[in-house]
Amino acid sequence: MTQALRIGIAGLGTVGAGVVKILAARGSHLAAASGRAVELVAVSARDKTKDRGIDLSGVRWEDDPLALARAGDIDLVIELIGGSEGVARQLVEEALKSGKHVATANKALLAHHGTALARLAEQSGVALNYEAAVAGGIPIVKTMREALAGNEIRSIHGILNGTCNYILTEMETTGRDFGDVLKDAQALGYAEADPTFDVGGIDAAHKLAILASLAFGTEVDFDNVHIEGIDKISATDIAFAAEFGFRVKLLAIAEKGEGGIVQRVHPALVPAGTPLAAVSGVYNAVAVNGDRVGHLVLEGRGAGEGPTASAVISDVVDIARGTIVPPFIVPAAQLKPPAKPLMDAHKSSFYLRLRAVDRAGSMAAITKALADASISIERIVQRGGKGDESGRMPVVFITHETDESTMARARALLAHHEDVAGTPLVIRIEDGELR
Amino acid sequence: MTQALRIGIAGLGTVGAGVVKILAARGSHLAAASGRAVELVAVSARDKTKDRGIDLSGVRWEDDPLALARAGDIDLVIELIGGSEGVARQLVEEALKSGKHVATANKALLAHHGTALARLAEQSGVALNYEAAVAGGIPIVKTMREALAGNEIRSIHGILNGTCNYILTEMETTGRDFGDVLKDAQALGYAEADPTFDVGGIDAAHKLAILASLAFGTEVDFDNVHIEGIDKISATDIAFAAEFGFRVKLLAIAEKGEGGIVQRVHPALVPAGTPLAAVSGVYNAVAVNGDRVGHLVLEGRGAGEGPTASAVISDVVDIARGTIVPPFIVPAAQLKPPAKPLMDAHKSSFYLRLRAVDRAGSMAAITKALADASISIERIVQRGGKGDESGRMPVVFITHETDESTMARARALLAHHEDVAGTPLVIRIEDGELR
Repeated sequence: MTQALRIGIAGLGTVGAGVVKILAARGSHLAAASGRAVELVAVSARDKTKDRGIDLSGVRWEDDPLALARAGDIDLVIELIGGSEGVARQLVEEALKSGKHVATANKALLAHHGTALARLAEQSGVALNYEAAVAGGIPIVKTMREALAGNEIRSIHGILNGTCNYILTEMETTGRDFGDVLKDAQALGYAEADPTFDVGGIDAAHKLAILASLAFGTEVDFDNVHIEGIDKISATDIAFAAEFGFRVKLLAIAEKGEGGIVQRVHPALVPAGTPLAAVSGVYNAVAVNGDRVGHLVLEGRGAGEGPTASAVISDVVDIARGTIVPPFIVPAAQLKPPAKPLMDAHKSSFYLRLRAVDRAGSMAAITKALADASISIERIVQRGGKGDESGRMPVVFITHETDESTMARARALLAHHEDVAGTPLVIRIEDGELR
Repeated sequence: MTQALRIGIAGLGTVGAGVVKILAARGSHLAAASGRAVELVAVSARDKTKDRGIDLSGVRWEDDPLALARAGDIDLVIELIGGSEGVARQLVEEALKSGKHVATANKALLAHHGTALARLAEQSGVALNYEAAVAGGIPIVKTMREALAGNEIRSIHGILNGTCNYILTEMETTGRDFGDVLKDAQALGYAEADPTFDVGGIDAAHKLAILASLAFGTEVDFDNVHIEGIDKISATDIAFAAEFGFRVKLLAIAEKGEGGIVQRVHPALVPAGTPLAAVSGVYNAVAVNGDRVGHLVLEGRGAGEGPTASAVISDVVDIARGTIVPPFIVPAAQLKPPAKPLMDAHKSSFYLRLRAVDRAGSMAAITKALADASISIERIVQRGGKGDESGRMPVVFITHETDESTMARARALLAHHEDVAGTPLVIRIEDGELR
């Protein structure tokens, strides 16, 4: 048997503790599967005294996580600190430079510095594995990196943020509004005290930037992700969407567009009956469309101790087995440079919800304004009865396919229209992939 | 760059031709991803003159597939002949013995001889890869073999035969009966001229035996798979199931049971709204339940040129990259020997459909017989109106949870009951996994 794989873990939060538990509980299985022992040598975290429900006897404690990158008795550094800069970045860079394998769950780090880190890993001939960084327990990185090499990828559609999916599902089930449900999610630990990263779509965008690079052979390009969050979605929108046969999801989409790879994160109406529409609660899912494999959908838990630790262990076993693949499939030098795509040229149908002023002829004026803006309407729903305090009724239009810039112009025009109160809300309509 | 990986392909049917196409179309990508060229050196098939839409110039033709195993200029033999015995088996054995890697789509071969072949591969230190043998383009073998090492697997629920799923979906959509839809499926190429392997559940059982070994660390044990096909399911059953909130699927299930691993393939009622219930047409899906990762569902195309060739190429790239893992995760010598589990002890709810003789008191007599047999009834549906030619009405019972042997006794008893015409049909009710 080869020498043991010696591991150092930086960060002992939920996921770190989960990894330690699996190493302890399944050590002999991991050794049998890897052909070598897998041994936890050292850990580093902020608080040495905290009870994490794990046994760290015989494991060296390092106050400074960077010591793990420098230690002579560590082959693999598992980085679970988080954040795109600071100590996490420094640790990963130093570990790779000093010839240590790295496994990380840090999506922000990879979204911002993935290509540069891949170069470092390749220069040292070590692994940079990050299964846990995207969609938790779902083996989407392995699938993209290893299983789909025979395919030209056409598109990726993901539900990559469990917090948003939980909130949208709760809003749908209970009819309560965003702010209310968010508070509950925070109380339940499904949302952070500062929820911006999640509900603003940034976390999903980090993950999407990684997947887009894997799918299209481009450098990781977070800066060109178009990002919209779910905070403007109301329970009313979800109810209207259901009436039209859709569910509202925060989708992360990467696809070829004019001028480059379009990467976009935004709420979307997804047709009921498609796999992504059926993904409820904290679950994540990724639908990949490849020219040979066709539609492939992976669904599972996107966060939490068990699923994320399971993904980290997957990375560990690969390294123990000696599987080292280029972090982004092909050597970093061969990745295509980012090119800002023309999102304006992107076409879809749209959901448009506005409040019409209650006067004779207002609807006629609004539909004429839409026609003048070259927006063609497929369906209109105007519900009687419950207008707002000023008697303004919500009206929803489903448009025929049109491009982003036309829709943006129409929306701006309506925002200043005398028969429209406030700013209209626009949500893109996306097929749910598969069928 | 390392020396090229030199490939010989045996079998040039749909899948073989698909593999040749991908090697030709994506050769430079595969080389970039693998760090070495991937080169088709020789092929062998029955008919040299057939037009397969592929360019074989510069590729050696071997009339005898076994020549591929003996050739000095081949590193990897791709076996696409099929069948558990004969030339396919001989080719794989010889190739492994002579130190050649093998990639195969042959589920029957692995179901019957998987453990022995794994031993051969390990003795020679070569890869035995078989992503294409289970669920076509879905990377379930890679997921089980590599991604879930941190998990104790609790169960696997699969829709592993696209022919059956297509037929059941068509029966549901059109209300037509099994025989009718089968004929159409044959005309469309979705079912073989002799459909026994598919509709009888044997093909799904082959795949299940492979997955069960991967899930539970046991020797591949096809002989202990409990197999029932879909040929007794009628459109009436599918309609009744829908009324109760279920869809009918051919499920392949592996789970821990009393005395060993229960492996069973049979039609099942799956609750609408669960991921497996939503899998329609020729699609396949596998739901894995692991103690850390929780529920994970993979869905995609289970057959056809593109998806299956995509899976073969996944195996090729792994081999080119130097990734060689034990065929069944741990060395074959460490796999647990098969133990026949007590299927009789398995418990579930059941769907029971029978035809009651049209006389006063017959329903009372039947329900009493069920009670006497210790079957507790949750729901009964008896539709008025359309009895068969002798006026016998279909009656459907949904039972509370009971064990297999109790249900089998009750069914035998009813088959001879004076108020029951013909043999009652029994279908197990399974949760659809995930949630």
